[in-house]
Amino acid sequence: MIAFRLEAGGATGPRAGVLITPHGEVPTPAFMPVGTQATVKTLTPAELRAIGARIILANAYHLYLRPGAERVAAFGGLHHFMAWSGPILTDSGGFQVFSLGGLRTVTDTGVVFRSHIDGSLHELTPEHMVRVQELLGADIIMAFDECPPAEADRDTARAATERTHRWAERCIAAHTTAASLFPICQGGMFADLRRASARFIAELGQPGCAIGGLSVGESKTLTWPLLEASIAELPTSKPRYLMGVGSPEDLIEGVARGVDLFDCVLPTRLARNGALFTPDGRVNIRNARFATLDAPLDPACDCPTCRTFSAGYLHHLFRCEELLAYRLATLHNLRFLLRLMEEMRAAILAGRFTSFAADFRARYRIVDEAVRLEQRARYAARRGRAADTPAAPA
Amino acid sequence: MIAFRLEAGGATGPRAGVLITPHGEVPTPAFMPVGTQATVKTLTPAELRAIGARIILANAYHLYLRPGAERVAAFGGLHHFMAWSGPILTDSGGFQVFSLGGLRTVTDTGVVFRSHIDGSLHELTPEHMVRVQELLGADIIMAFDECPPAEADRDTARAATERTHRWAERCIAAHTTAASLFPICQGGMFADLRRASARFIAELGQPGCAIGGLSVGESKTLTWPLLEASIAELPTSKPRYLMGVGSPEDLIEGVARGVDLFDCVLPTRLARNGALFTPDGRVNIRNARFATLDAPLDPACDCPTCRTFSAGYLHHLFRCEELLAYRLATLHNLRFLLRLMEEMRAAILAGRFTSFAADFRARYRIVDEAVRLEQRARYAARRGRAADTPAAPA
Repeated sequence: MIAFRLEAGGATGPRAGVLITPHGEVPTPAFMPVGTQATVKTLTPAELRAIGARIILANAYHLYLRPGAERVAAFGGLHHFMAWSGPILTDSGGFQVFSLGGLRTVTDTGVVFRSHIDGSLHELTPEHMVRVQELLGADIIMAFDECPPAEADRDTARAATERTHRWAERCIAAHTTAASLFPICQGGMFADLRRASARFIAELGQPGCAIGGLSVGESKTLTWPLLEASIAELPTSKPRYLMGVGSPEDLIEGVARGVDLFDCVLPTRLARNGALFTPDGRVNIRNARFATLDAPLDPACDCPTCRTFSAGYLHHLFRCEELLAYRLATLHNLRFLLRLMEEMRAAILAGRFTSFAADFRARYRIVDEAVRLEQRARYAARRGRAADTPAAPA
Repeated sequence: MIAFRLEAGGATGPRAGVLITPHGEVPTPAFMPVGTQATVKTLTPAELRAIGARIILANAYHLYLRPGAERVAAFGGLHHFMAWSGPILTDSGGFQVFSLGGLRTVTDTGVVFRSHIDGSLHELTPEHMVRVQELLGADIIMAFDECPPAEADRDTARAATERTHRWAERCIAAHTTAASLFPICQGGMFADLRRASARFIAELGQPGCAIGGLSVGESKTLTWPLLEASIAELPTSKPRYLMGVGSPEDLIEGVARGVDLFDCVLPTRLARNGALFTPDGRVNIRNARFATLDAPLDPACDCPTCRTFSAGYLHHLFRCEELLAYRLATLHNLRFLLRLMEEMRAAILAGRFTSFAADFRARYRIVDEAVRLEQRARYAARRGRAADTPAAPA
């Protein structure tokens, strides 16, 4: 079982704490790098530790399909299988199933769908996905939920939210191990549904609560009031996990509103596309202006990439599609986010989060929302499958 | 300038020595990992050092095309550009130009060919490729040569060999820096041409000699007598470099005959295809028998992969086409070869090379030659370009 110790902050607004797990402590707020298939793409566990990762996420959906949960259990569980000795959280597969295109049938029983790998037919139920996660052996496991799309109308959102609640109760009833199970609140794009869902989830009495169904394609002007509506009903003493959020500017907004845990494929996926974070905003390392730059991409960055290689060399590796490029870029982007979390935590403890956030926002140029949504749509179209399962870059 | 100190052995038969370069000493016999485009595919310089690489090779041909030799010079040369502080040898581009399919025109002046990247037209001359290598700034640079194919008849082989000799003289005349220039002997598949070529190359008085045009598709029963013919005419006191040879069994044969330096893309390319070296021979990690193996691929191996991850996990990464797979496999295969070189050197110094080689041969199951040649042809057909420039694995 996990525990949570709040060190600064309260019911809303920025908080600093410590998440205590059977595999070590995690200072919060924390970002969890995503290791979809039991590997944070391109990196070793030793590298993850070296850049400050304290907890990682893996996907029950992907690992259920390949290599199979029983297989991972036979290897002694995920920690041993992937040689990561720190805490692990597994996502239940709900988001993956609902973000898949193609055939799926949802009933109160569960979801019948076709594998994105071989087209084979599978039925996932709340009970089954709890069992899968118990076999994987993570420290924190997630309830199986139905995540309504951003464009869902009120009735659709309400139906998905109510099903999510029923499934959360079934997950808790089915759960048998010492892993901590976090239920997920939904509510679509409706503040009153969000509040009611958060209240329901809070009353389940589990050791932590997750907020799902945000940052799924809606405008950011919607996201933050809806996040506030959810958080208002969650217990102060337990960790709050905002699922699938991880751009630098969104992490600032989430922390400002009282989120403790985040995960997102964005930093690692962007890295493999050559889009790198800097204090001034995202840059594309393939851009010709980097070809002759014999200096680190960010001279102030403490990541292994910036400490060792020039932006010009990184540019060369990307132009040549060398595999080392994706590693070095991933190290940089993840370290950028992990350092941002460390800096936010220090600012909260020192009582200067507001000025830290203002300084960051003043300098960091955000990608235009229209461009961002278009990139997202293009990415989804190109993949033709779950948006968080990119293959090796082309 | 380099120097060479022979510590054991003589004109023929196994030798141990030390190659002394401006960037450090290299115990010989030594294998040079190939960093075609200024990166040993998937690995960082720190990892190369950690697995025992003491010298690496880069390709003047590729770096001339991208990012350009002047560009690398503006970064302070290859060592600084790629952040590798040890010795570097650059190949002249001769082999790449002649192993390219497509349009090329060879005259005594040089070679006119189309870039494999963008189809642009280039003329490479001996003088030009010396200048390119001087700009790259390697410790050892190679003469520009014409490498006849394995099926070349006597007249074709003789003409290519004589042109190689004339070009070697022009390279030496054009050479202006402190880098050490190694000329290359050829001779096709004809022992008398090989002997004459080696004699000619030896008399040029350069600090080292290379043996080219072997292991280019001919049967191994031809290779070794031809290697012996070449070596018989080379000076005892200078290092001999057998180009493009790097399977474990071939390294044993080369060292047994007096070779000091080797390079080959084989270990790194095989790794990316999931073919891994073990003391019993090559295995394909994708094979179903590894799926459940919760033990290192080779429990006796001291590579970072075998020390940290199970064969079953490696199998999973390859099945999922995860980028980490190619790194971990590359580390393993390179460490296998580098350790083999260390073990051969120790055996030579201890006067027990013959028994070491016999023990190795008795255990290591060699890939059937017919299979090997077919794999080679298939690989070349799939790539449709220079056989040593694989792109990221499919």
